[in-house]
Amino acid sequence: MEEQTITNVADASAWVNPMVGTTRMGHTYPGATAPHGMVQLSPQTHYEPYLRADDTYNPATYEYCAGYQYEDTTILGFAHTSFSGTGHSDLGDILIMPTTERPDLTSDSDGGPLFGSGFDHAREAAKPGHYAVYLDRYDIQADLSATERVGIHRYRFESGGHAHIALDLAYNIYHHPDKNVWTFLRVENDSTVVGYRQTTGWGRTRLVHFAMRFDRPLKDYGYVQGQKLDYNGFYRRFQEHQGFPEMAGRDLRAWFDFGTVEAGDQLGIRVALSGVSMDGALKNLQSEAPYSGFDSYRQAARAQWNEALSRVEIDPLREADRTTFYTALYHSMLSPIIYEDVDGRYRGLDQNIHTSENFTNYTIFSLWDTYRALHPWINLTQPNRAADLINSMLAHADESVHGMLPIWSHYANENWCMIGYHAVSVLADGVAHDIPGWDRNQGLETAVRTARVPYFDGLDLYMKYGYMPDDSSHSAVSKTLEYAYDDWCIGQLAKSTGDLVIAAEFDRRSAAYREVWDASSGFMRPRLSSGQFREEFDPMETHGQGFIEGNAWNYGLYVPHAQDSLIAWHGGPDLFIAHLDSLFTMKLDDAYFAHTEDISRDGIIGNYVHGNEPGHHIAYLYNFAGAPEKTQERVRMICETMYGPDTDGLCGNDDAGQMSAWYLFSSLGFYPVAPGSGMYDLGSPTVRSARIAVGQGQTLIIKTRGNEVGKSRVKLVRWNDQVLNGWQIAAAELVQGGTLIFEFE
Amino acid sequence: MEEQTITNVADASAWVNPMVGTTRMGHTYPGATAPHGMVQLSPQTHYEPYLRADDTYNPATYEYCAGYQYEDTTILGFAHTSFSGTGHSDLGDILIMPTTERPDLTSDSDGGPLFGSGFDHAREAAKPGHYAVYLDRYDIQADLSATERVGIHRYRFESGGHAHIALDLAYNIYHHPDKNVWTFLRVENDSTVVGYRQTTGWGRTRLVHFAMRFDRPLKDYGYVQGQKLDYNGFYRRFQEHQGFPEMAGRDLRAWFDFGTVEAGDQLGIRVALSGVSMDGALKNLQSEAPYSGFDSYRQAARAQWNEALSRVEIDPLREADRTTFYTALYHSMLSPIIYEDVDGRYRGLDQNIHTSENFTNYTIFSLWDTYRALHPWINLTQPNRAADLINSMLAHADESVHGMLPIWSHYANENWCMIGYHAVSVLADGVAHDIPGWDRNQGLETAVRTARVPYFDGLDLYMKYGYMPDDSSHSAVSKTLEYAYDDWCIGQLAKSTGDLVIAAEFDRRSAAYREVWDASSGFMRPRLSSGQFREEFDPMETHGQGFIEGNAWNYGLYVPHAQDSLIAWHGGPDLFIAHLDSLFTMKLDDAYFAHTEDISRDGIIGNYVHGNEPGHHIAYLYNFAGAPEKTQERVRMICETMYGPDTDGLCGNDDAGQMSAWYLFSSLGFYPVAPGSGMYDLGSPTVRSARIAVGQGQTLIIKTRGNEVGKSRVKLVRWNDQVLNGWQIAAAELVQGGTLIFEFE
Repeated sequence: MEEQTITNVADASAWVNPMVGTTRMGHTYPGATAPHGMVQLSPQTHYEPYLRADDTYNPATYEYCAGYQYEDTTILGFAHTSFSGTGHSDLGDILIMPTTERPDLTSDSDGGPLFGSGFDHAREAAKPGHYAVYLDRYDIQADLSATERVGIHRYRFESGGHAHIALDLAYNIYHHPDKNVWTFLRVENDSTVVGYRQTTGWGRTRLVHFAMRFDRPLKDYGYVQGQKLDYNGFYRRFQEHQGFPEMAGRDLRAWFDFGTVEAGDQLGIRVALSGVSMDGALKNLQSEAPYSGFDSYRQAARAQWNEALSRVEIDPLREADRTTFYTALYHSMLSPIIYEDVDGRYRGLDQNIHTSENFTNYTIFSLWDTYRALHPWINLTQPNRAADLINSMLAHADESVHGMLPIWSHYANENWCMIGYHAVSVLADGVAHDIPGWDRNQGLETAVRTARVPYFDGLDLYMKYGYMPDDSSHSAVSKTLEYAYDDWCIGQLAKSTGDLVIAAEFDRRSAAYREVWDASSGFMRPRLSSGQFREEFDPMETHGQGFIEGNAWNYGLYVPHAQDSLIAWHGGPDLFIAHLDSLFTMKLDDAYFAHTEDISRDGIIGNYVHGNEPGHHIAYLYNFAGAPEKTQERVRMICETMYGPDTDGLCGNDDAGQMSAWYLFSSLGFYPVAPGSGMYDLGSPTVRSARIAVGQGQTLIIKTRGNEVGKSRVKLVRWNDQVLNGWQIAAAELVQGGTLIFEFE
Repeated sequence: MEEQTITNVADASAWVNPMVGTTRMGHTYPGATAPHGMVQLSPQTHYEPYLRADDTYNPATYEYCAGYQYEDTTILGFAHTSFSGTGHSDLGDILIMPTTERPDLTSDSDGGPLFGSGFDHAREAAKPGHYAVYLDRYDIQADLSATERVGIHRYRFESGGHAHIALDLAYNIYHHPDKNVWTFLRVENDSTVVGYRQTTGWGRTRLVHFAMRFDRPLKDYGYVQGQKLDYNGFYRRFQEHQGFPEMAGRDLRAWFDFGTVEAGDQLGIRVALSGVSMDGALKNLQSEAPYSGFDSYRQAARAQWNEALSRVEIDPLREADRTTFYTALYHSMLSPIIYEDVDGRYRGLDQNIHTSENFTNYTIFSLWDTYRALHPWINLTQPNRAADLINSMLAHADESVHGMLPIWSHYANENWCMIGYHAVSVLADGVAHDIPGWDRNQGLETAVRTARVPYFDGLDLYMKYGYMPDDSSHSAVSKTLEYAYDDWCIGQLAKSTGDLVIAAEFDRRSAAYREVWDASSGFMRPRLSSGQFREEFDPMETHGQGFIEGNAWNYGLYVPHAQDSLIAWHGGPDLFIAHLDSLFTMKLDDAYFAHTEDISRDGIIGNYVHGNEPGHHIAYLYNFAGAPEKTQERVRMICETMYGPDTDGLCGNDDAGQMSAWYLFSSLGFYPVAPGSGMYDLGSPTVRSARIAVGQGQTLIIKTRGNEVGKSRVKLVRWNDQVLNGWQIAAAELVQGGTLIFEFE
């Protein structure tokens, strides 16, 4: 066995490029944040109303899910919240822009504010916990950092000027005139401002409170209202638009004047967030960022990232993959985010204030995406955080009027996005990884309750027919397949608690996938409530054919808990392998992409779609049909072609870390095809060796023999010197730590 | 001395007519409430938008400050909050209407909902803690009661039908399409609904949470939105308008279906409010109204009122005055209201949640009105509540970004209504009555801070010029006089804590009234910043002549702390008496009333205006000029002509109890011309005798000798058998208890 050198990871942040995914459809943001931090302080480069003047959807907003696109040349300001990699958006709270003159707070014809500045990538830099850019219009060097709950700003006025801050509470990612519900500001003293804003959007009733501290005294301040309300009560005794310390309205934009500054003078600002209240934000500020100064916060953020990133150490076959890998690792730590104040108080889904007992509360659960690999990754490598995530989901269910686990939740809201109830997969996978610190019986109870809510997304019909009838849903097959898998997870969970009655019920339900298999076409196919398959059916088509965000070719292969059936129905291993080969190699013409919305050649290999989640397990399916070499080859190809170290390094939405988590696993040589099964499926690592902190202080070593670029074929795999029989290894083994050795042919 | 029988007051509620003030401009409400309770559950009889279609003010809204006018024939529903007697409005939260069919939640052309019912006063009854009415349209007998924080409803379906409840969160007193900010509902189970609504209006950022429990199970429910927002986020998975337990939007109107009921079946509802949160409301519900049933709550409310009302016992000269008196006593206990949850948590002015420590938090401080007599009344008769009120005001100042005591505050908002900073009078009067349980040093500090806020209502100019210049304010003379009195109160407060420096400063400021006396016209007169009096000046005119809600004849007599100056300037006692006589006897023609907005013949004696507050002390001024018999005569006349036991029994806005408190004092024979002075001024009681619980368990007995209807002249007054020298008695004496005997000529 070759001895390999693992590069020192003391400053792994240096290998991260937060710009990865900021072009094409990565939907990542380059701004400053702490690992899983509540604050994501990031530049906003565009203003697009969500609806056009004729009230139709404006597709240009889509690419601004995270507020930033690398192609843009203007920065509107720096907002404090952002999703990472999602396919729909919200947030963009508390936009701040420094200026050297009284900012123009009025709007242009698109409704965007007029104080934006040009910038140049040559004078822009993004690293974990630090974003820097030069604002050409104002000659201001902007540096941003963050603690978990506080955004740290430093603005250096290179040419001096009349220092101002624009604070735009009207700005929203996915802007719409109706989106702001209320905004509120109080100038507590000449260096402290608190406030909140309330929006309706993806999160229907969303509140973000903040507390802001300047390290220069305010000279004056004032505001304008984007949308003025006719009714303002009886009378106002004050000229409130300037110098009056209380401001409220639907769409406040405020200015803060710090007087004339000399060239090189700096303005520091610390902005704490809270989901609870303004005094909660103030407490967060005082706890995490009590002192002015920028560099110590930046250094602390870097150190925090280095600690987090150093938990994995790799020796990649290709040096460029180091950045790809550590950026993926970075992206895997941006969601979910901490969602509680330093005192443990948080706003629950019921809009009441709760205190987390024995856990840390998190939000942003993009579960249709992240149950596949991101949660298994956290379960394997960060069991304490995994327990927090599970307990956060259980608290969500407690607070839910439906008694349901989260579907897609953020900031004390359930936005119901996508299909399935995949939190149950996270619970089952938590059992598989033996995550401590949560109540499995409570988990089972809430999982069962979730899976029985009759009015949720056709569950009544699914339970009645044993599949989702196509005449009641546009994505009936996808739902049937996902529900079936989720039900199998509940069965797993029930077995772990010894509840064999529930296990039997949900094992029965988990066979629903059988009901939508159409032997005549050889595809999973939309089936009507009459029992007949739908006549019209195009397995190439992504929309309206019983699937959502995937076609029958891709999504129809989604039976993670019963691959054997799939292989049998396709006529046995050889025909199944041929089917997979067709998927990866078929040639699609431009006409196909032209008429298929949301699908571009980015992220496609043949007809295999890597840029979206339903197919993420497919490359590993060859293993089950006895062709591991094809899994190895495909996985390697996907790693090499679908990921990269530059701005265009993501082939599709990162989806809150799922796309990146796929890469983390696959480049290390294994992947969870069926989370909750307790088994990982082996691929072909792109590293020579690796060290991964797993479980409770254990170390998993990956080693390879004969691994080279261009050589994907693994001869055998050893676990602690025992040759593995088959192409799986148990999660229960991996979390104990040990050495996994891939021997290449 | 004649022995007099005092009627038994065990059921004093029987003498109260809550309908008093529901016609003309009383602005009272007939609904059910507990003494100073947070819930005022009252019928709403009209729907008038605050602005007309052309965006101009709709004067028809004015009379609906409390939501009800006796002349109306339709009830829209029963709302849970109301001001009592104010001259501007807000509130009307959480409107409920029972129906026997699915209520029509859409609006008529005025924007009002369509589910209202006709009613007849013959089948309506109002008593303390109980309001009953028959809803003709639905054949429903409605009975309402209240605990401090919970509205209790009982609806009897006399003819059966399909029982429903309309819950209108869009309804507002002083309606405007922009007034609702957000509304939220959760159906927790088949008998519990929680929610909140957020409004902007007089209270700019106001939140009311509630928890509602039905004693019949819900069969179904749904909602419509008055104002639909275009933007609703990405997608909604549910048909949410029916049967979906979470509802939110700007203007929700919901229906709740209880299925078919038989004739005589009842539906009970308990609705708890909270300023804090929905779980706070639920806690209030569980604490104060844990069980269904109506009669026990009604009886408890009656008992609570009887206890409160029995603290004063009278033997009136005219039997009808008994109702007038006890109704005034009732009206004196409707404001301020308790504003905290049962656990002491309340929403502060800073919009953060606080917990009251060692006091009960109150809101609705209509101080320009109530400092005159309502607060002295509470200081004299309810020292513990008085301490709570003072501590609530000090907490308000702590929570104020201005550091200011309340001006006119309600529900965690400062609406800045009217002039002066009269909370300082309440503090000084608290000292005069030796109210325990508050920190006088803190009181002085906040009073001084309040009086020095330069941007508050011209205070900078007042401090600069020593009076308020007319060229900077339309009510410069009123402000000068009120500020001067308030400053004198601060001086009194400072003396009580021994701070002679502050006392000297504010005694100096309290002489500001001297600066607006115009000897040439013999009136307080608008003075310009140049030092000159304004040329154009009409002392009869109420508007634009330097005064607000009063003309120079009335308001110009407002120097409660320095009557001697006023008398001297008028040329001595005789000329001053003649001046007062002119005020009370001058004949005004219809043309005067026609062009003088807001002033009608109601509430006027000559040119003396009793229907508003600035003149409330005037009848007592004769005392100071040596003509006590004229005070006695005028006071008796005002008692007899401006108050009564019927719906029209108030001659003007009751103003949160001030108008009623004037009556309580005056009918008992004394009145605080200068609250904070520690002195009461003697009049002519309309009772033969009375017993008043005062101080800490003391009793004040009022006796009379030779008192008859038509005979107002008091020969002498004895205090504990000592003949009083002069026409005053010290508050410090009265709070000790004792016997005050009026001997008539």
